Amino acid sequence: MELVSVFRVIDLLGVLCNAIIGGSIARTLKFDPVGFAVLAIMSALAGGMLRDILLAAGPPVALIDPAYLITALAGAAFVFVLHVEGRPWRWALAAMDAVCLGAWAATGTVKALGLGHGPLTAIMLGLITAVGGGMLRDIAIGRVPAIFGGNTLYATAALLASLAVLATPAELRPTVGMIIATVVGAAITLLARWRRWQLPQP
Amino acid sequence: MELVSVFRVIDLLGVLCNAIIGGSIARTLKFDPVGFAVLAIMSALAGGMLRDILLAAGPPVALIDPAYLITALAGAAFVFVLHVEGRPWRWALAAMDAVCLGAWAATGTVKALGLGHGPLTAIMLGLITAVGGGMLRDIAIGRVPAIFGGNTLYATAALLASLAVLATPAELRPTVGMIIATVVGAAITLLARWRRWQLPQP
Amino acid sequence: MELVSVFRVIDLLGVLCNAIIGGSIARTLKFDPVGFAVLAIMSALAGGMLRDILLAAGPPVALIDPAYLITALAGAAFVFVLHVEGRPWRWALAAMDAVCLGAWAATGTVKALGLGHGPLTAIMLGLITAVGGGMLRDIAIGRVPAIFGGNTLYATAALLASLAVLATPAELRPTVGMIIATVVGAAITLLARWRRWQLPQP
Repeated sequence: MELVSVFRVIDLLGVLCNAIIGGSIARTLKFDPVGFAVLAIMSALAGGMLRDILLAAGPPVALIDPAYLITALAGAAFVFVLHVEGRPWRWALAAMDAVCLGAWAATGTVKALGLGHGPLTAIMLGLITAVGGGMLRDIAIGRVPAIFGGNTLYATAALLASLAVLATPAELRPTVGMIIATVVGAAITLLARWRRWQLPQP
Repeated sequence: MELVSVFRVIDLLGVLCNAIIGGSIARTLKFDPVGFAVLAIMSALAGGMLRDILLAAGPPVALIDPAYLITALAGAAFVFVLHVEGRPWRWALAAMDAVCLGAWAATGTVKALGLGHGPLTAIMLGLITAVGGGMLRDIAIGRVPAIFGGNTLYATAALLASLAVLATPAELRPTVGMIIATVVGAAITLLARWRRWQLPQP
Repeated sequence: MELVSVFRVIDLLGVLCNAIIGGSIARTLKFDPVGFAVLAIMSALAGGMLRDILLAAGPPVALIDPAYLITALAGAAFVFVLHVEGRPWRWALAAMDAVCLGAWAATGTVKALGLGHGPLTAIMLGLITAVGGGMLRDIAIGRVPAIFGGNTLYATAALLASLAVLATPAELRPTVGMIIATVVGAAITLLARWRRWQLPQP
């Protein structure tokens, strides 16, 4: 399997995983199928859409490539039909989510660098790709976004994943950089969740 | 009158109607004229603006063509000055709203297909055009968007209107397709409202 | 110093000031550093980003020019580290905010006119530049945006600043127009704050 395909698979795994998270929230809020679909799409695709809108390089890939919408809707349908619960399930979801957090941060950073933007812009877009969808979903359901405080280093993990990409030599970024970023992002997210690490408050 | 003009009239009727709905909500929340204007513009124009942003085909038509902003502001001013109420008024508004729901879903779908996008993308953009503005308005005032659940098949009607456009042969889409979609969307919206149909919850 | 530089300085002062306002809100909500950064960026940069997205003329300048992000993050860091309070501080912040409100409204209007858009579109974009960021920040933290009502002519001051630009002869707009608009916007904002002027409610 080519490397490009590997990242597409990771990317779509992230979409599936975040769609399931969005659908699970829709379930606790007793939404109907439309609510499931919208929350799944927001959680899974809105971060990448916002990145593509800001990069102004054509319509968002999540809207053009049908695999993204189909995967997000499949995740929503899965949670709508099956009512999975319990600790092992939640840990599996958290692990998948942690893996794709770093991968998404890396995708955003690599894409911005590839379009000729500077490092600060690239970090911003990595962060938006990784945490923008969850933030917009939280706002849509009237919750203060989890990343604003009291959570477990979610944005910090994305930031470090993005920095890992920048620290990688340019020619290795879309390969080695992506892998390192994914590992870094996943490790920090899971460690922080396990040890209940939090950022200091003022 | 040319057909293009007919759709522009339906489109602007939809803008007026949704601006009035937005203004009515601003009235119940005791907003000032700025709040009336913003809620009217969100209800009436934000769906189409979001569609045009996502399609990345130039600035949103609702921002460029002054008729849209003027119509939306006229709707806001109308509700600000006159305090219309009562069952007949609410039904007239609901009927107009139902008509333009299907028309907007069709507009979004036709526009996306015209730019060469696939059917799934086109359906998404039809839905965003039809229900995106109301969703953003609800979020802006801290309400959980009505389309997420407990409402009456609003997004479903838009979905079927969009599918009706896709089912129409390509060369008839901007004419016959638009008409069928508008009728389908309006019929389902009004039937659902009358019979209190809802989608099942998980 | 060239005039272009003068406006860049005013623009960045506005970014700093609004970042400090965003950070101060993050402090009252007990957010962590991520929350401080996001609220500062939203308050300071989201209005201009929304303007640039709607104008569809390339990626938002606030994302490309590192000075904007750095200034916004500096404002957030300042409030995170130092806990400044008291009447003189609040008045200094209000004065700076008032100055940049008019300047931002003028920037948005001038930019839209420069891209060939009509006066109504230009006014809309002036308003979005001036008050869009604060509105999005309020929505993100679950507050009804202050500009919707009960506040003190904030959007009205931006509207008059924008109209002042339009009333200026075209060749003087980027210079004299900007100055008049800034003065008009600041004067009305501060007068309204001092005299507690409000718009009428229906």
